[in-house]
Amino acid sequence: MNDTFLMRCEESPAALLKPVALENVRINGYLGRYLERALEITIPSQYELLESTGRIDNFRRASGKINREFQGYFFNDSDVYKWVEGCSYALIYANPEQREKLKAMLDEVTKEIADAQSPDGYLNTYFTFEREKDRWTDLANMHELYCAGHLIQAAIAHHRVTKEKTLLNVALRFADHINKTFGPDKKKGASGHPEIEMALVELFRQTKNRDYLNLARFFILERGKGYAGGKEYTIDHKPFLELNEVVGHAVRMLYLCCGATDLYLETKEESFFKTLIELYNNMITKKMYITGGVGSRYEGESFGEDYELPNRRAYAETCAAIANFMWSWRMLLATGKSVFADTMELVLYNGLLSGISIDGKHYFYVNPLEDSGKHVRQEWFKCACCPTNLARFLPSMTNYLYTVSDKGLWVHLYENSHCEATLNGEKVSIWQNTHYPFSSEVEILVKTEDPVRFDLFLRIPSWVEDFEIFLNDGEVDFNLENGYAKLSREWKGLNRIVLRLKMNVRLVQSHPYVRENTDKIAVFKGPILFCAEQIDNPDVDVWTFTLDPNEPLKENVEYDSTLGRTTFLTGRGFEIEKDMQLYRPYSRCTLKTERNITLVPYHLWCNRQAGKMAVWLNCT
Amino acid sequence: MNDTFLMRCEESPAALLKPVALENVRINGYLGRYLERALEITIPSQYELLESTGRIDNFRRASGKINREFQGYFFNDSDVYKWVEGCSYALIYANPEQREKLKAMLDEVTKEIADAQSPDGYLNTYFTFEREKDRWTDLANMHELYCAGHLIQAAIAHHRVTKEKTLLNVALRFADHINKTFGPDKKKGASGHPEIEMALVELFRQTKNRDYLNLARFFILERGKGYAGGKEYTIDHKPFLELNEVVGHAVRMLYLCCGATDLYLETKEESFFKTLIELYNNMITKKMYITGGVGSRYEGESFGEDYELPNRRAYAETCAAIANFMWSWRMLLATGKSVFADTMELVLYNGLLSGISIDGKHYFYVNPLEDSGKHVRQEWFKCACCPTNLARFLPSMTNYLYTVSDKGLWVHLYENSHCEATLNGEKVSIWQNTHYPFSSEVEILVKTEDPVRFDLFLRIPSWVEDFEIFLNDGEVDFNLENGYAKLSREWKGLNRIVLRLKMNVRLVQSHPYVRENTDKIAVFKGPILFCAEQIDNPDVDVWTFTLDPNEPLKENVEYDSTLGRTTFLTGRGFEIEKDMQLYRPYSRCTLKTERNITLVPYHLWCNRQAGKMAVWLNCT
Repeated sequence: MNDTFLMRCEESPAALLKPVALENVRINGYLGRYLERALEITIPSQYELLESTGRIDNFRRASGKINREFQGYFFNDSDVYKWVEGCSYALIYANPEQREKLKAMLDEVTKEIADAQSPDGYLNTYFTFEREKDRWTDLANMHELYCAGHLIQAAIAHHRVTKEKTLLNVALRFADHINKTFGPDKKKGASGHPEIEMALVELFRQTKNRDYLNLARFFILERGKGYAGGKEYTIDHKPFLELNEVVGHAVRMLYLCCGATDLYLETKEESFFKTLIELYNNMITKKMYITGGVGSRYEGESFGEDYELPNRRAYAETCAAIANFMWSWRMLLATGKSVFADTMELVLYNGLLSGISIDGKHYFYVNPLEDSGKHVRQEWFKCACCPTNLARFLPSMTNYLYTVSDKGLWVHLYENSHCEATLNGEKVSIWQNTHYPFSSEVEILVKTEDPVRFDLFLRIPSWVEDFEIFLNDGEVDFNLENGYAKLSREWKGLNRIVLRLKMNVRLVQSHPYVRENTDKIAVFKGPILFCAEQIDNPDVDVWTFTLDPNEPLKENVEYDSTLGRTTFLTGRGFEIEKDMQLYRPYSRCTLKTERNITLVPYHLWCNRQAGKMAVWLNCT
Repeated sequence: MNDTFLMRCEESPAALLKPVALENVRINGYLGRYLERALEITIPSQYELLESTGRIDNFRRASGKINREFQGYFFNDSDVYKWVEGCSYALIYANPEQREKLKAMLDEVTKEIADAQSPDGYLNTYFTFEREKDRWTDLANMHELYCAGHLIQAAIAHHRVTKEKTLLNVALRFADHINKTFGPDKKKGASGHPEIEMALVELFRQTKNRDYLNLARFFILERGKGYAGGKEYTIDHKPFLELNEVVGHAVRMLYLCCGATDLYLETKEESFFKTLIELYNNMITKKMYITGGVGSRYEGESFGEDYELPNRRAYAETCAAIANFMWSWRMLLATGKSVFADTMELVLYNGLLSGISIDGKHYFYVNPLEDSGKHVRQEWFKCACCPTNLARFLPSMTNYLYTVSDKGLWVHLYENSHCEATLNGEKVSIWQNTHYPFSSEVEILVKTEDPVRFDLFLRIPSWVEDFEIFLNDGEVDFNLENGYAKLSREWKGLNRIVLRLKMNVRLVQSHPYVRENTDKIAVFKGPILFCAEQIDNPDVDVWTFTLDPNEPLKENVEYDSTLGRTTFLTGRGFEIEKDMQLYRPYSRCTLKTERNITLVPYHLWCNRQAGKMAVWLNCT
């Protein structure tokens, strides 16, 4: 929230971080509870829905096993692929009983996918039989390359976890079909919904076949020529390298940026980084909600203008929050700068986890910052992109806590966890013991077999006013670099680090151009944004409550039968008069009644009861 | 703006007012300038556009005169009909030169319409040739009854003004075709876009044929059964008499209410009035912008929830403002209560006239209350409903100034004008001499040949704090009834009344549930809402300017080369700091710089230069 929030990254990226393999990380803190629910509830329940909504039958139809009409939207294959990706990750963390159940589902689904592939490698169940002739005829609207991208990502995840090759071979055959079809001397094109770009880069990483990298680059650079519809909505109004503002459909924009960042990570083309940093700065300094949510408009599920961030009609699609996280992660890998991890943290704990209920099987597609009580979580949507995106995101959260680089080991997110990393060929074990994000203390244990010299980078969140670091109960030297505390030393045996982040309640205000938020404040503790829900406030209207910013807010940790052990905040203020006309003559004096208000973490809202909600509270 | 703004009309309507024939009224004040521009510019320029966009060719195609594809939207016939209606009214007020030109255009267009009618009376140029088989198969979406309604209204206007019967006969043949097709024992149905209902009531008034009235009633009462799509968007989610909230597509909702009020005016069915008054109260107390604009959502061009009135993303379609005016007028006829005329005045001078530029040929489809400078007036739209609605509204404004009733003569709107009315068989002449809405004084001359006893009702606008009435320079007794000053006497010869309305600058605030408007005020003088435009304020950012409500605003009448003689207001206050992050820690103190601000009437904004604009100003 401080000045590092705005990044003007003129110089070349300082660091290039590498992820740690998923199987080498375990989480069991606050995020771990979401992962556990994903294994036990989210992924199995979505399997049932993929079946009951005909999404898997679409594959059976394509392979000729059943004879029925295609079901649902033309892009429904992508939901199946996203689920396969998520279910594959889930196997890593599943207990034996869960694993057996999930693996059986996964085997069934991957078999149906493989059986549906055309002999020439093409695979999209909508473009079969009577619609086979229409393949690749409408790249702007028909999501064929988008679905292909999700297939490739799913197949890579499936292969990396299971070591099986069935689905990977399906993806490779389709990728080769696409590579034979599109290219500088072949068919020109770009996808109306980006996704293929990051998938192809990952396939290059998997196979080392540069054709896939070149094809990703081709699809990105072909934009702006009208192949993807020629409109801002599909980010085809300009060549990618001429973009200077995040516009159009938010998920499309951000998936494109993910693909372009992936490409940059492999090719190091400065022109890409220059464009990406300009777009990223525009997003976080002009177009991002305080929840980390993005894409403020219902119309076209799109970004609005600068500072256009309405609260009640915020769109802030769950998929766009995930896409923001995914892009921020890639920018973090490229730069090693904490601004990107700060954004990851902000969106994760607020506008992203808000997308799934505490029961693990109800979802928000849209994530408003203010509501009258009509917005409720749903079991499923006809367009089910958000639930299935959560199904692949939640079991991959482990990916984002730690990275390694030539310099050392990086800790980006704080969560009760364990990681086995390899640094300069030496094995390093690291544990976090913490109740983060609700506690300010993180105990970090670092263990090496043999002495290893490396830097340990601990992210100091931008919201922190002050912090302390102790090593083995004593003081320790460190440097602050790019928002990380760097502990440089030879690590030997077991070392205990304690990181204490000063985690006061923080009151935040907006730029005055966000005119909806005039004289309003938002309340944070650590990375957690709070909101006022009517259910916690039977005697006060959360829309007319006015917080007194001089009265300190109090923290209460309580057990709620739905939410479990939860941190609430209580503030003091007053309620303003509301028994009046829609419009009336201005008068400075309105009736005021003293009131307390109870606040709950925003990402938990609407789990107990629909009702009025506000993130931005009136403020005296 | 005071308590009468909220009408809880439990009792039966008190009055039943009758319009004065258009040809008996002349206007030549502020509204008269808009009428004059309509005759000289708006209507002729739209004729060219109807031709160049193929809208008239669609009729030529249907009659077999030319061979080309149907042009544009399937409802484009309606634009031609609306223009015919407007051009017919225009003939009344045109000078000989204008009249000759307009009549030639009108003759050409009406001829093409008449020639395009099918032998069975059906007329819709989209449903011809290859689409003839699809007639009446999709009432929810295809606007056939909507276009038919506009034809009927145009034909009645054309006949009343020209006394010619060609177009009226076309409309009658089509109406009879519709009456043969639809009915209790025939095809069931309701129109996805209401309009036919008010047209059929007017056709009943024209012909006294009750079939048309019954058919209008049938179409209204068939709603809620799924014939019109079954959705809130088309107001087919419930039976009409069970509606209790204005919802769905704003123009559809309000056109339906117009038709239902017209029906009520003829049948006096209390159940209709009960529904209408509940809907009207919901609109003006929960869902109307301070401009009188309605329909806050881009999505579905629809009403939002109660108090959902975002400024920057206000939709507030010009057609919806016209529809609000049309419905308020009908409710006024039914009740004689000034709340309805107050709404007419509010929307007319603000959210309606904002829809047309001062040059008479550029339009807003959408009328935001705050803008970054990207919203500019257009010459035309692919969906041209708003320009053509203005083309028929502007030359019919004369209709709304005066009415008569059993009790007497009513003056609803103040405007330099002359009216010849007939009361109890006696001729009464009335003149208004005034610079209203920019001046607070109205001189009213009433002249009768023979002495006539009647009540003269003068509307006292709800925004008036105080007023005075003089008769022949002396005091006069009057009663205040339903918002009207009633002067009861025997009128003899020439009498001079002077009405002085105290027209101070007024600062207005919103209900706190309109959370966008927290700590913001709007500025009125008389019925005119002001806004801050960047062009008038080179040294102050109108989005961060904060008005000091204790400093009186000053009025300056200036000559602007585009706007002509215009009233500006100047206020004092300060500008708040804006050189800051999107989000930052709350601090009570922000840098403040003293500033003046110049305000311009809202309906004139964006005539000179695109730029930042705000209606709701920050306020200390």
